[in-house]
Amino acid sequence: MSQGTLFIISAPSGAGKTTLVRELIESLDGIQVSVSHTTRARRRGEVDGVNYHFVEVASFEAMIERGEFFEYARVFDNYYGTSRPSVEAMLNAGQDVILEIDWQGARQVRQQMPDAVSIFILPPSRDELERRLASRGTDEHATIARRMRDAIGEMSHYDEYDYLVINDDFTTALRELQSLVISRRLSLDRVGKGHAPLLAALLSQAPGVE
Amino acid sequence: MSQGTLFIISAPSGAGKTTLVRELIESLDGIQVSVSHTTRARRRGEVDGVNYHFVEVASFEAMIERGEFFEYARVFDNYYGTSRPSVEAMLNAGQDVILEIDWQGARQVRQQMPDAVSIFILPPSRDELERRLASRGTDEHATIARRMRDAIGEMSHYDEYDYLVINDDFTTALRELQSLVISRRLSLDRVGKGHAPLLAALLSQAPGVE
Repeated sequence: MSQGTLFIISAPSGAGKTTLVRELIESLDGIQVSVSHTTRARRRGEVDGVNYHFVEVASFEAMIERGEFFEYARVFDNYYGTSRPSVEAMLNAGQDVILEIDWQGARQVRQQMPDAVSIFILPPSRDELERRLASRGTDEHATIARRMRDAIGEMSHYDEYDYLVINDDFTTALRELQSLVISRRLSLDRVGKGHAPLLAALLSQAPGVE
Repeated sequence: MSQGTLFIISAPSGAGKTTLVRELIESLDGIQVSVSHTTRARRRGEVDGVNYHFVEVASFEAMIERGEFFEYARVFDNYYGTSRPSVEAMLNAGQDVILEIDWQGARQVRQQMPDAVSIFILPPSRDELERRLASRGTDEHATIARRMRDAIGEMSHYDEYDYLVINDDFTTALRELQSLVISRRLSLDRVGKGHAPLLAALLSQAPGVE
C-alpha cells in the first residue's frame, strides 16, 4: 500500500474553490477533504463529522496541548483547526487528502509536511473577481471593498504554492485539478510501492535466458 | 512566454509507447516529439525532418565535434543522435518536447537538463509482454528470448524515472500521460511567467482601499 498525498488548496473568495473541490472528489476515487475541528456551535443542517468535528473548548485546548493540530486559529470566540492524527490516518490508508486552508495555514502545514502538494486557485480576471464578490448578497460599497482587500491579501501569497490553477472555464479547471492528483499517483515512489508485485514479475529473468 | 518542458519517455518494446505518444501529441496542443538526426539511408516512405533529419556522416561528426548532441549512439555503421540546439529552440518557443529514448540516452539528457521530466511506460503484466513480443512476425524461440532479455534490461532502469505509467487500459494510460503534461504546465514557474499580466491585475490595489 502506498502512502496517500496531502494536497493543500487555497484561493481567495470568489475563485470557485468550493465547487471545484466538491467536483474533484466526486470525480476521482481515493481522495477526500479533511474535516476540520471547531468549537463553534453547529448550525442547522450541519452534520458532525461531515461539515466539522464539533468539539468542546476543553477538548480543543487539550488537543492543542498535545500538539495534535497541523494548524489552528481562533476566530472571534471560536477555535478552528486541522487534526494531524486524523489526516495521517487517511494518508496511511492510501487515501489522498485535501486541506482547504488559507495561506497562513498552508505555511504551517508545509513546514510539517514538506511533501504536501500545494495548489492556489485564481479567478480568471480582476473584473470577474469584482463581479463575483459584489454579487454576494450586499450592495454596500465598504463590504465589497473589504472583500476585495481580503482577496488581494490572500492572492498576494500565490507564489508560495507549487501549482496555480486559473478558474476561467470550469471544466478545464476541474481537469487541471484532476491532472495534479493523477500525476502524483504516478510518481516513482507511489507506483513502486503500489505495484511492487507487477514490477518484480516484469523484471524476473525469462526461463532459458542468461 | 514561459519555457516549455522536456519530457523523456522510455519503455521496453511491447509497452505500447509509440501509439501512446502519437495519441498524446494529437490530443494536446503545444507538444511535439523531437526529431532525431541519423546518417542511415532514408527508407521508402520516410520524410526528412519528420521521421529523422537525414544527414551525411561528415555533418554528423561535425555536430559531435561541436558538442551539439544531448546524446548520440553508433548502431552498426550508422549514427543516431538528439540535437540539443533544435530541442532548445522548441523549448524556448514555449513548446513542450518529447524525447523517445532508451535508459542510456535518458541518463545523458538528465545530466544536461536536470529539469526534464522523465516517464517510463510499463506493460501491464509479464504474460502480456511475452505475448506482444512473440507476435512480432517470428516464431523463432531465440529471437523472442532475445527480445525478452532486451525488454527486461530496459525495464531494470525504471527506478531512474520520475513517473511510471502502466499501459493496461489504453485510454487510462493516455489520460495519465496527458495529466503529467498538463500538471507541468500548472507549475508556479510556468503560470507565473505565462500569465504575468493576469497576476499583476489581480494583485493591484482596489481604488479607495488602503
